[in-house]
Amino acid sequence: MERALQLAASPGVPLRPNPRVGCVVIAPDGTIAGEGYHHGAGTPHAEIEALKDAGDRARSGVAVVTLEPCNHTGRTGPCTEALIDAGVAKVVVAQRDPNPIAGGGLEALAAAGVEVEHGLLVDDARALNPAWTFAHENGRPFVTWKFASTLDGRSAARDGTSRWVSSLPARRDTHALRALCDTMLIGTNTVEVDDPHLTVRDADDQLLADQPLRVVMGERDLDPERRVFDDAAETVQLRTHSPLEALTTLYRDYDRHHVFFEGGPTLAARFLKAGLVDEVVTYVAPLLLGAGKSAVGGLGIHTLSMAMRLEITDVAVIGEGSEANVRLRLTRFQGAHLDTSAEPGGA
Amino acid sequence: MERALQLAASPGVPLRPNPRVGCVVIAPDGTIAGEGYHHGAGTPHAEIEALKDAGDRARSGVAVVTLEPCNHTGRTGPCTEALIDAGVAKVVVAQRDPNPIAGGGLEALAAAGVEVEHGLLVDDARALNPAWTFAHENGRPFVTWKFASTLDGRSAARDGTSRWVSSLPARRDTHALRALCDTMLIGTNTVEVDDPHLTVRDADDQLLADQPLRVVMGERDLDPERRVFDDAAETVQLRTHSPLEALTTLYRDYDRHHVFFEGGPTLAARFLKAGLVDEVVTYVAPLLLGAGKSAVGGLGIHTLSMAMRLEITDVAVIGEGSEANVRLRLTRFQGAHLDTSAEPGGA
Ligand SMILES: NC(=O)c1ccc[n+]([C@@H]2O[C@H](COP(=O)([O-])OP(=O)(O)OC[C@H]3O[C@@H](n4cnc5c(N)ncnc54)[C@H](OP(=O)(O)O)[C@@H]3O)[C@@H](O)[C@H]2O)c1
Ligand SMILES: NC(=O)c1ccc[n+]([C@@H]2O[C@H](COP(=O)([O-])OP(=O)(O)OC[C@H]3O[C@@H](n4cnc5c(N)ncnc54)[C@H](OP(=O)(O)O)[C@@H]3O)[C@@H](O)[C@H]2O)c1
Repeated sequence: MERALQLAASPGVPLRPNPRVGCVVIAPDGTIAGEGYHHGAGTPHAEIEALKDAGDRARSGVAVVTLEPCNHTGRTGPCTEALIDAGVAKVVVAQRDPNPIAGGGLEALAAAGVEVEHGLLVDDARALNPAWTFAHENGRPFVTWKFASTLDGRSAARDGTSRWVSSLPARRDTHALRALCDTMLIGTNTVEVDDPHLTVRDADDQLLADQPLRVVMGERDLDPERRVFDDAAETVQLRTHSPLEALTTLYRDYDRHHVFFEGGPTLAARFLKAGLVDEVVTYVAPLLLGAGKSAVGGLGIHTLSMAMRLEITDVAVIGEGSEANVRLRLTRFQGAHLDTSAEPGGA
Repeated sequence: MERALQLAASPGVPLRPNPRVGCVVIAPDGTIAGEGYHHGAGTPHAEIEALKDAGDRARSGVAVVTLEPCNHTGRTGPCTEALIDAGVAKVVVAQRDPNPIAGGGLEALAAAGVEVEHGLLVDDARALNPAWTFAHENGRPFVTWKFASTLDGRSAARDGTSRWVSSLPARRDTHALRALCDTMLIGTNTVEVDDPHLTVRDADDQLLADQPLRVVMGERDLDPERRVFDDAAETVQLRTHSPLEALTTLYRDYDRHHVFFEGGPTLAARFLKAGLVDEVVTYVAPLLLGAGKSAVGGLGIHTLSMAMRLEITDVAVIGEGSEANVRLRLTRFQGAHLDTSAEPGGA
């Protein structure tokens, strides 16, 4: 299985839209008969590649796969069918397929008399495709909320200016994180105020070939001349105020697994209140404004003990000298409640 | 001089109230005749100790001192007198004495026929006593502003609760930084709202023997039962609204060199606007409030290009797991202006 995981993570395999999968076929004599991995959408699945590599030596052997072989819509799918046809005696799987449409591969194999087993190194297999796994298990994309703020928590000055709170290296870093997602999401008001392009550029400021879907959320009609509607990438407007409805639509109708959500404060507050922010990335710039738009709108929290608590997973300084910003990454808090006991020690 | 600097920084020498000073006496044959350093207030100066160590071998030798020998109020002071009496031929000094009361040592030595030189490794010598040097050069103490805030820049929740924004390890860390200062400063309203003790405790939560002066700034009469007025340390109320007047008083009348300023937002804004914050230490807690008191009050800044810009000098994670806070240290910005050019790249 370790070898199969290695194969799945081979250099050059895209993270999306398909899951990364690796497969090793072991001959009855215990030697490796064949290896394969999925190279990305439109190419053969890992099992097919490994079986082809193994040829006749697969017969009565064991196929070790990082993900349950596909079995589309209850019928015997291409991979389960190929494994049965090749005459393997046993299939060992790490992660079961969380995709409700593709699942059932192990049952189909067992029904055909193949011995099946699953769960081996399942955490590593899930970590190969975290957003893909999350989206299928939760029926909605994983949400990364990114915001930039000053030391005193402002995302824009009193007159609305917000270009640029973060430094150029921090903005470049944001593009690198955007490139890991399949969807960009903002509110209608940010489109009107900032007219952002919402595309992904490389370190040389060139547009990447593979652009995330641009999504604008809100009910008002927008000027089609706004940059977000140009042809650099696809764009949809979701005319809803419900974060859950928007995310469900993105999963169900657009097959989206990872949303990079860039505010503004109004929409960010709605997502937070709905419990629909899975990860936070924030760039803190060494600026003080003393006034202006806060990074997040009202959350209905009146007292400190009710504060929304996150957990810091990573802290990095992005950029140097006067361009240095501090990047914090945080996830949902998993631990105990906020300590509000009246302890001596200064605020 | 390097040896003299080493001596000055000997382990156990207190950082305050006196400057750290080291001295090496070199005999006419070029060998080291004597060494000395100042062990802290109430003990002999470095030159006296080194001359005593050298004895007769100081005659016609060279005294190397990290700080200009003292020469109180124009009279020949104890150290210059001792150097002249010991018959040294030359005195080499790193830092000239910035204290207007103690200066003039080199002139007195030269008038007595001793060869004098200064400036060697002066930056290292200044770094031995940064707050002391700063205070004497500027006629006011160095100001470190410390605040704790949430990810969205709140220092208290809507109902005023602010215990505790920062985690216990962050509060302990604050006490370690307080211990490096000689003065704690807050506004009258923080005394009324939070009733802080403003003392310094060690890692075991015990009061340190050497407590900074507690200073409350503001004009209103305060309840003498507030904790800041107890007998754990000395306390003064400065009935002024002028940050410069308060700091000048602390330097002139209380011989204070380093103020640890802990807000609130109103007073912090006044100090910032007056250009009287030299260093910022902030603890960012992984909390979101969406409302509440901002870390800093109005600065009269309307647009982003006018933002007050600082420079990050240090970033550290204090505490672990759910107690992790991010500590940022920043100083005045020395470089070029904020870039506000309309560059592509996301806010
Ligand atoms: N520093 C940063 O990281 C950053 C990032 C983004 C924006 N900003 C700044 O933030 C400001 C814009 O913020 P914003 O909060 O006004 O914009 P926003 O959150 O992007 O958009 C708000 C709009 O979204 C629509 N909407 C969709 N779902 C909603 C819901 N559940 N509840 C309420 N409204 C919903 C509403 O418009 P409809 O009437 O169309 O439904 C609403 O007016 C600008 O100054 C921008 O520069 C800063
Ligand atoms: N998270 C943190 O790091 C932190 C730190 C401290 C405080 N806090 C929170 O901040 C809140 C208190 O903040 P605050 O801003 O009201 O208190 P503050 O800044 O401590 O005190 C303000 C008072 O100081 C006096 N003052 C002195 N010089 C002044 C000047 N130049 N301009 C204006 N006023 C001057 C005024 O009172 P007079 O009428 O007496 O002159 C004024 O009302 C509390 O909720 C506290 O919990 C948080």
